[in-house]
Amino acid sequence: MNIPLILRTLGLVLLCEAGAMLPSLGIALYLGENDYKAFVISIFTLTIIGFTLSRTRIISSDVGYREGFIIATASWLFLALFGSLPFMISGAIPGFIDAFFETMSGFTTTGASVITDVEVLSRSILFWRSVTHWLGGMGVIVLTLALIPSLKIAGMKLFRAEVPGPAKSKVLPRVAQTSRELYKLYLIITIAEILALKLAGLNWFDSLIHTFGSVATGGFSNYNASVGAFNNPAVEYIIIFFMFICGMNFALHFHALHGNFRPLWKDPESRLYFSVTVIAVVLIAINLITVMDYQPGTAFRQSAFQVVSILTTTGFVTADYNQWPAFSHGVLFLLMLIGGCAGSTGGGIKNVRYLILFKSASRQIARLIHPKAVIPVRLGREIVPEELVESVLSFFFLYISILLVSTLIITSMGIDLLSSISAVAATLGNIGPGFGVVGPATNFAAIPAPGKLLLSLCMLVGRLEIYTVLVVFSARLWRS
Amino acid sequence: MNIPLILRTLGLVLLCEAGAMLPSLGIALYLGENDYKAFVISIFTLTIIGFTLSRTRIISSDVGYREGFIIATASWLFLALFGSLPFMISGAIPGFIDAFFETMSGFTTTGASVITDVEVLSRSILFWRSVTHWLGGMGVIVLTLALIPSLKIAGMKLFRAEVPGPAKSKVLPRVAQTSRELYKLYLIITIAEILALKLAGLNWFDSLIHTFGSVATGGFSNYNASVGAFNNPAVEYIIIFFMFICGMNFALHFHALHGNFRPLWKDPESRLYFSVTVIAVVLIAINLITVMDYQPGTAFRQSAFQVVSILTTTGFVTADYNQWPAFSHGVLFLLMLIGGCAGSTGGGIKNVRYLILFKSASRQIARLIHPKAVIPVRLGREIVPEELVESVLSFFFLYISILLVSTLIITSMGIDLLSSISAVAATLGNIGPGFGVVGPATNFAAIPAPGKLLLSLCMLVGRLEIYTVLVVFSARLWRS
Repeated sequence: MNIPLILRTLGLVLLCEAGAMLPSLGIALYLGENDYKAFVISIFTLTIIGFTLSRTRIISSDVGYREGFIIATASWLFLALFGSLPFMISGAIPGFIDAFFETMSGFTTTGASVITDVEVLSRSILFWRSVTHWLGGMGVIVLTLALIPSLKIAGMKLFRAEVPGPAKSKVLPRVAQTSRELYKLYLIITIAEILALKLAGLNWFDSLIHTFGSVATGGFSNYNASVGAFNNPAVEYIIIFFMFICGMNFALHFHALHGNFRPLWKDPESRLYFSVTVIAVVLIAINLITVMDYQPGTAFRQSAFQVVSILTTTGFVTADYNQWPAFSHGVLFLLMLIGGCAGSTGGGIKNVRYLILFKSASRQIARLIHPKAVIPVRLGREIVPEELVESVLSFFFLYISILLVSTLIITSMGIDLLSSISAVAATLGNIGPGFGVVGPATNFAAIPAPGKLLLSLCMLVGRLEIYTVLVVFSARLWRS
Repeated sequence: MNIPLILRTLGLVLLCEAGAMLPSLGIALYLGENDYKAFVISIFTLTIIGFTLSRTRIISSDVGYREGFIIATASWLFLALFGSLPFMISGAIPGFIDAFFETMSGFTTTGASVITDVEVLSRSILFWRSVTHWLGGMGVIVLTLALIPSLKIAGMKLFRAEVPGPAKSKVLPRVAQTSRELYKLYLIITIAEILALKLAGLNWFDSLIHTFGSVATGGFSNYNASVGAFNNPAVEYIIIFFMFICGMNFALHFHALHGNFRPLWKDPESRLYFSVTVIAVVLIAINLITVMDYQPGTAFRQSAFQVVSILTTTGFVTADYNQWPAFSHGVLFLLMLIGGCAGSTGGGIKNVRYLILFKSASRQIARLIHPKAVIPVRLGREIVPEELVESVLSFFFLYISILLVSTLIITSMGIDLLSSISAVAATLGNIGPGFGVVGPATNFAAIPAPGKLLLSLCMLVGRLEIYTVLVVFSARLWRS
């Protein structure tokens, strides 16, 4: 285990985080907000710790999967731990567990909040809260598409074709190059949404906050009523569009931006994602029209917003869907378990895994009828390796197990079964709001402190696609 | 496809069912109940149809897996369809869908009921209702242990060791011999429980009804308050014991009865089953003592009864667990998804599948750390074949998918999300009562007719371990 290299990387991560606090400090100073002190102290602390760690002497630059797993898990933990400093020091969120939950929710692009009234917070604090989303979203794309493709299931292939062969010495330059391209793409999408929201009538600050929330599929808003506060259909449709785009594989956008739309049209995962969205929007709209007597236009808009927001695991809301009929609850709960596409900022189980799960299941049926047939699982034209099929099948089992066991622990704190299961589904899937006491009109303040810690862990486990975190907790890793 | 052989077998099944109605007719005549007419008409109808079908001319006696799948699925369907005749003709359950639901619930040993007041029904009708359990339980053991071992995961191995090699010509005599041994065992357990309950103070009729309900892990009672009506701890502990025994692999009992206790002690599935039971009983008892201020004795007894009843998928109740705290709901919901052991009369996902699921998942973690290691999945000392591992992983995915999609359909009928998911979990797992409107103090009468049909299908799919029914619905089977 290359501990010095891990420490050094974490030091660099903290220095980046300190740098990311600078705009918030700038806003505090520009607007004369008292919270500038919180940022000065935080930046100072982070710089000292980060600088010290980054000076760790490196004996070897060998870095394998093992180090990768630890770096990924520890980075998100460090970001959340130290990123909570401005909240605690400013008094915006005085308690450590609450501040940690909120920051983890930010960096994992979950968007679950413990703040009962966000509208009383200073702009600099609100800005920092949303910056955590934006950084987290960028981190996840780079992590899943460039850094540890071994954990990825599809998508990476698209990039691999672009860059020179698999020679070991070229891994680092390749990662650097891919990351640069992804940063550029992420930035372009971000700027496009800021401008679109500004044109639709939002001020610059609101545009920035809601852009960070949607491109990262995060969901933090600076209004208690979330996007519903604007009461502006144009804004809603713009946000629907960008949430939807950012729930798709960024590798496909990369090609599209270079004029190659073929991978986008041909991608089986995108087709499933699109179909799920259309079917869910129609089902809920019909349900709202027939049971709740909504006007068709309103029903469609509210359904589209909530469906895309939940499926992409963003968590913005324009309606209190807790008040919707049981069938709409059922559809939304199912969407919570589906999530976005691989290689996106979205969370959840992901559409491509469902493709593999369905194909493996239908292969089982075929095998019972033709016991000797050899039937490969295919994605488009490519054959999915058997180890990957089993890995995806086990992923599904682990996801459901973690969901159910965590639910059980939350119920032990006196939270009802439906609220508990939706709280875990909403954090494990990096979505944000759930049902019942953690519904869209309320927040996670009602969950006791140990529950908030568990849900923070769920966010981390979900964000890093389970295996990364489980590997780090495995005794085997540390023995070897 | 050997259609004549399938029709002939179904004819024999119907003749057996007609025979199984004779004791109920006898009771009606002995007690002078008016419902004797319903049995006379039903037996007459079944005999004619059964006799006609059984005379189908057989061209070939070739029977493969394909025919096996169709026979299994069609047998349960026919049993439920024709078994509902006495209920409809007697007027005990006038509607076809309700009567079909109740009979399917009986033959699949589910125990979910649509009858609001069972205490007004005649003894002959109540007896027939419970006989469906007893027959269904026997059918399932023979099906999973003797007839289609290819669908089975463990357990069968134990029997295979007893009988001569796998030569094709010996399949039929082997099945017949194994079935006979199983019938004997099932009968011994049945007689033992009837006597035990009689000694504990029940009358013969109540002893019979509750024995049928527990050995088949069914759950039909002739009292609205189920086993709670007796208010007799001895009766409760006897029923707990027999439910627990019948949730275990009957192959192990077979060996134990022949003096060989080694397989029982060494069986990894039984150990998991035992551990789950103990942990769940303790957790709920503590929850009832601390939150509901129950006396420790009462808490333990009520917890043990409900835990064993749900885990074994019986569904008898002695307490309205709807009123219990959220944590107890969480534990019971988890137990609903676990179920009994393979080769038992119990339903659910089954303990042995969880062993394989856990081992496959932990192998994934190990593989990420040692990418080149070859790690087999083991049950005890035996290596589980890779196809079986994938089959179990896909089974889990299918089970959860069917659970979620069926839940969605039930919510579309205006039933709340928690009641819907528990109604599906309780029928798919062949348990009986769920939570909310289908809770232990109520029944399935509140579910609209299309919902009852869907839940009947869930019972069938769950009872025949998903694949059997899916294969029959697969176009591939009929093409080939």
